[in-house]
Amino acid sequence: MWPSNRVLDLFGIELPIVQAPMAGANRAALVVAVCEAGGLGSLPCAMLNADGIRAEVELIRGGTANPFNLNFFCHTPAPPDPVREAAWRECLAMYYAELGVEEASPSAVGGRAPFDETTCALIEELRPPVVSFHFGLPDSQLLARVKRSGAKVLASATTVAEARWLEAHGCDAIIAQGAEAGGHRGMFLTNDVSAQPGTLALVPQVVDAVRVPVIAAGGIGDGRGIASAFALGAVAAQMGTAYLLTAQATIGDLHRAALRDGADDSTVLTNVFTGRPARGFINRIVRELGPISDVAPAFPGAAVALAPLRSKAEAGASSDFTSLWSGQSARMCRGIDAGVLTRELATDAQVRLRALSNPNAAP
Amino acid sequence: MWPSNRVLDLFGIELPIVQAPMAGANRAALVVAVCEAGGLGSLPCAMLNADGIRAEVELIRGGTANPFNLNFFCHTPAPPDPVREAAWRECLAMYYAELGVEEASPSAVGGRAPFDETTCALIEELRPPVVSFHFGLPDSQLLARVKRSGAKVLASATTVAEARWLEAHGCDAIIAQGAEAGGHRGMFLTNDVSAQPGTLALVPQVVDAVRVPVIAAGGIGDGRGIASAFALGAVAAQMGTAYLLTAQATIGDLHRAALRDGADDSTVLTNVFTGRPARGFINRIVRELGPISDVAPAFPGAAVALAPLRSKAEAGASSDFTSLWSGQSARMCRGIDAGVLTRELATDAQVRLRALSNPNAAP
Repeated sequence: MWPSNRVLDLFGIELPIVQAPMAGANRAALVVAVCEAGGLGSLPCAMLNADGIRAEVELIRGGTANPFNLNFFCHTPAPPDPVREAAWRECLAMYYAELGVEEASPSAVGGRAPFDETTCALIEELRPPVVSFHFGLPDSQLLARVKRSGAKVLASATTVAEARWLEAHGCDAIIAQGAEAGGHRGMFLTNDVSAQPGTLALVPQVVDAVRVPVIAAGGIGDGRGIASAFALGAVAAQMGTAYLLTAQATIGDLHRAALRDGADDSTVLTNVFTGRPARGFINRIVRELGPISDVAPAFPGAAVALAPLRSKAEAGASSDFTSLWSGQSARMCRGIDAGVLTRELATDAQVRLRALSNPNAAP
Repeated sequence: MWPSNRVLDLFGIELPIVQAPMAGANRAALVVAVCEAGGLGSLPCAMLNADGIRAEVELIRGGTANPFNLNFFCHTPAPPDPVREAAWRECLAMYYAELGVEEASPSAVGGRAPFDETTCALIEELRPPVVSFHFGLPDSQLLARVKRSGAKVLASATTVAEARWLEAHGCDAIIAQGAEAGGHRGMFLTNDVSAQPGTLALVPQVVDAVRVPVIAAGGIGDGRGIASAFALGAVAAQMGTAYLLTAQATIGDLHRAALRDGADDSTVLTNVFTGRPARGFINRIVRELGPISDVAPAFPGAAVALAPLRSKAEAGASSDFTSLWSGQSARMCRGIDAGVLTRELATDAQVRLRALSNPNAAP
């Protein structure tokens, strides 16, 4: 059926489609829909506490018997930097004044926790079939425990060097995340946004550099993108933005509206929302303070001072201060059920793949 | 043989491979080798005068009877801006002092001329089968004359909006130039480098937006990339960097050495060399003044003041001030004959395409 079964066999899934975990944009419902359709659904855990993760996993297991993925962030929290935080608040002061809101309490957290002892124990308790990491990997002892739990381990590479590092540290498969991808760049050995390779250049170079299966990510929006991932040597496609207009995505109306209007050149990599580079639509704060700010506090600190602005603006139906994550293929988003979408993406990819060797079968 | 014959029929060529015109890096010899192998060879004309173009076309016609492409720039020369030019010289003053060179004469030209009445008359005289443009199109009267000469017209789009514009203005085919591409971005309706889409995202969106054939460019380095271009809906691939290590490329040893060492994340889009964004290897001047400088004079002015630095540094085997153009797939470059490369790329693509629908044929 597919040019390669490596990822299907590794994870025990039917379709070579991984739904990208999207912190703040998906919970159990999307995971269930994708897993039931035959793909690999992913639950983003970085913004959930242990009880929240338990509850979502219960919902997933209540909805599907198929394998699923739990995703965690692996950033090293930066030490507090009062000078930089003060400079950031200074940058935002005019917006506080304009919107008439109070500054956020400096003690508020950025809301994104790294994988640690507690979450590792939770993995051992919940035993998810797949665990994926973003921003590198946890330390070797924690990673060894994750692997001993029986989970297959996935992580994102944005360069060949990162892919080699992930393989050397024991990843079972690697997501080659090209620059087109929406949300946070997985980059962890580099912070040079301007040199990040695009998906079409990155994937074959990663395939040549590692032996583990490679999953292509970044800008894949329909069956053409999936077929293209296979052409480049990947054995599956990870798609996030494509799911953002589905019924199961948990984003708000402002984000949905931005996606419906989104063009190929409507997004940039920006660090103004969280302190780490992530791809989203260009809106007022990106235009005025970004896309890359030298002042934005380290991840996830930048989000703290933005929170009251975002809340107040959204209450007035403005997305001026909202992170509107999206990859470069928003134009391909479809507002349908995520399970139906998954099956249609797979069928579309099959048709495209067949047409490539038989012009008479062209769609 | 191929998933689509649209570009083969349009240009009268055998293989769906367009050799990208590379000003300063290729002349007739590369064009002849690619055309004789069955692809579309392209002569960059922007840095040649009329006699130079005539001489190269004579060499091409002496070497092949197959169709070839003449490429021209379509920038609108900026009015002189003495303030900015002075600021740029100020930026470079420390390098002049360090290298002990004299400033370039302010009257020196940037060496890249736009398509005009003279070159249009030359097209009418030489009647090349294909003419391609970068940075938009010439004005409608000149373009009408080019088309009346019998030439098929090609141009580069870096966004869907640019592709629509090119189709509306009469292009016979469009090159969708993704952000991975080496050398100058063809961008002409936008100057926002940070929002430029990658090839994998751009190509299908351009295919959906226009009716003319689309040629994919950017990061395509081997048969996988060509197969991927077809998967995305393109009907041919344009490749430039892939030819830079061939015997027929006219680049120097420093540039060749950089390509041999090039990694997926060794390049950036920079305007420090010419005033327009172009992708090349990160070297000293890019690191110290770029990648994007607000001071670099408008295209091609930035090159004037750099010229003496480049010459002096190169004489000492240093590429600190040399534009080392490359896309993100330098790692796939092969130091072989360009004709052999063209045929092997086509064969590789054929094998990859067949393998996509028949896993047992996997290479």
